[in-house]
Amino acid sequence: MTAMTKGLEGVVATQSSISSIIDDQLAYAGYKIDDLAKNSSFEEVIYLLWNQKLPTKKELDQLKNELAANMELPEQVIEHLRSYDLSTVHPMAALRTAVSLLGLYDEEADVMETEANKRKAVRIQAKISSVVTAFARIRQGQEVVQPKKDLSYSENFLYMLNGKEPEDIEVEAINKALVLHADHELNASTFTARVCVATLSDIYSGITAAIGALKGPLHGGANEQVMAMLTEIGEEKNAIPFIKDKMDKKEKIMGMGHRVYKQGDPRAKFLKEMSRELTELTGQSKWYNMSVEIEEYIKENKGLPANVDFYSASVYHSLGIDHDLFTPIFAVSRTSGWLAHILEQYENNRLIRPRAEYVGPQSQQYVPVENR
Amino acid sequence: MTAMTKGLEGVVATQSSISSIIDDQLAYAGYKIDDLAKNSSFEEVIYLLWNQKLPTKKELDQLKNELAANMELPEQVIEHLRSYDLSTVHPMAALRTAVSLLGLYDEEADVMETEANKRKAVRIQAKISSVVTAFARIRQGQEVVQPKKDLSYSENFLYMLNGKEPEDIEVEAINKALVLHADHELNASTFTARVCVATLSDIYSGITAAIGALKGPLHGGANEQVMAMLTEIGEEKNAIPFIKDKMDKKEKIMGMGHRVYKQGDPRAKFLKEMSRELTELTGQSKWYNMSVEIEEYIKENKGLPANVDFYSASVYHSLGIDHDLFTPIFAVSRTSGWLAHILEQYENNRLIRPRAEYVGPQSQQYVPVENR
Repeated sequence: MTAMTKGLEGVVATQSSISSIIDDQLAYAGYKIDDLAKNSSFEEVIYLLWNQKLPTKKELDQLKNELAANMELPEQVIEHLRSYDLSTVHPMAALRTAVSLLGLYDEEADVMETEANKRKAVRIQAKISSVVTAFARIRQGQEVVQPKKDLSYSENFLYMLNGKEPEDIEVEAINKALVLHADHELNASTFTARVCVATLSDIYSGITAAIGALKGPLHGGANEQVMAMLTEIGEEKNAIPFIKDKMDKKEKIMGMGHRVYKQGDPRAKFLKEMSRELTELTGQSKWYNMSVEIEEYIKENKGLPANVDFYSASVYHSLGIDHDLFTPIFAVSRTSGWLAHILEQYENNRLIRPRAEYVGPQSQQYVPVENR
Repeated sequence: MTAMTKGLEGVVATQSSISSIIDDQLAYAGYKIDDLAKNSSFEEVIYLLWNQKLPTKKELDQLKNELAANMELPEQVIEHLRSYDLSTVHPMAALRTAVSLLGLYDEEADVMETEANKRKAVRIQAKISSVVTAFARIRQGQEVVQPKKDLSYSENFLYMLNGKEPEDIEVEAINKALVLHADHELNASTFTARVCVATLSDIYSGITAAIGALKGPLHGGANEQVMAMLTEIGEEKNAIPFIKDKMDKKEKIMGMGHRVYKQGDPRAKFLKEMSRELTELTGQSKWYNMSVEIEEYIKENKGLPANVDFYSASVYHSLGIDHDLFTPIFAVSRTSGWLAHILEQYENNRLIRPRAEYVGPQSQQYVPVENR
């Protein structure tokens, strides 16, 4: 056995053809994230992650149609969302349960052939945004909005969330956020999914497990916490004193730094620019200005640049999205990557089973309970 | 970064004080599995795994009382189990969903203090056997049986499953099976749970993820497949020809060998003995005899000894348990270990985030879809 590596930092657990982080550059199947953020639709990225090549026009149209056609939820899943008190549950716990439940209504859930798994991938990717939007509407006492077959994935997401067709800039923002969050090599939720399905468990188990992992504040919860911080700060003038105080108390400041990127997160700049545009448009520039001030201060004083979560907070806020839906939206995007990794794991599977170094009590003698 | 180690075989991912596998000997917190299998109740083992010491009489009584007091399911979870077609779903998918759902009814689900997590551990351990037994009864069209506060965990399990108080030998068999399956170091489902909660996600997310992993045929599904094989063989005289044929076709024979144990699985002998007793008692010795013949043949010809799954198959079958409930029973037992590992992970947490070696397409140039 090798020496213990806590958190498996720097340990290479698998080969993968899906995304790469090399010299602080993120690429999906060899395409730089910069090019994709500027040019791609989320559907193109889904295709890219699942097939490791960009789609032709025909392939792209087919995937778009399949996604739109599969967005509708089984009525029982909507009933399920209505069956408990949505105002008190964590949206990610609700999403975890609903996706697990979706598996019970998929007749192919346990068919492990490649083509069946690809069909399930389309269904899960299609339905996960419907679960998030249905959850959001039901807890507001609103009707669930059915998807439209002629809308893109991002358009449908906003349409189902708000009940009206979105503005172009809103679609651009959501599309960009979905593209940027779609995959990130062996991040903790993706790794959870791969460990789970490497037992040859089904794809619903893998996605359910990944949602559970993304729920954690050290992973998907970060942008929600960034927004909580900005809200607590309230006004631009309070930003630096607040941060100084945090740093004095040695408290973690969310949205800064990244275990893998040392020089900076290549995704942050796109959301920074969207944040600038959207906050200006909605007359809430203070969130952007505050964020820039904090970013610069932390960079100067701790050497940590902002990561993808930092500006996604004010982007989603400007779109009028409830803060506790930030992580579910991250899940909607990352599902594309999770599915890609699950399909890749199946193609060349080996059980993922490391060892633990035992440090507990040694050679204990059993004594009957009466004599203890 | 280190060289790639597929499946993380031999890689030490964490320190742990819960169980150890050293020189083919399994121990829970330093107590040999042989001593525990002979002497311990499952409740004692739960206490041991969670506290790394055996309980005093008072501590044990308290845990027993707490478990029995928490076994009852929320009515909504029983309604949920009645809401879909249980005859067609995989029981592990049903269990995954129901445990995720239990989290929505636990007001402390997201309270991350140690004491709250310990209370949740008791609730989950208590309720998981009620979910499995309620599922089993509802799909048979039978009433759900409420637990009795004065029964042990194993007694309650059989009582809720069958609607009548069990015989001593049945209790002994289930107790032994629960003790033997309770923990097994960083097996794939336990590792899934730890990766999941290392994002500081909640305990329900961790257990839900682990159930998903255990569902896989390379992990928890093995004993069900052993019984399927025995059923297919049908009669003793067919056993060796069947196995020879499998070996000629280079097909995997379930329940044999183990990645970690090279000389033999120390748990197998206890279930072998229970299998002998129970099959004799129920006039079905053929399952035991057939199993022994197969074990000896494989050992001689492939050098692989039987593992824990091999004899648990005929034990559970002799208890009249549906074959597709074998893995859920495994989950009931392993939940104690999952919970121990989750609590341990929280105590000294670090995000588990390895790297992937990128082997996909390099330096691709983005071309607009019209020009592809």
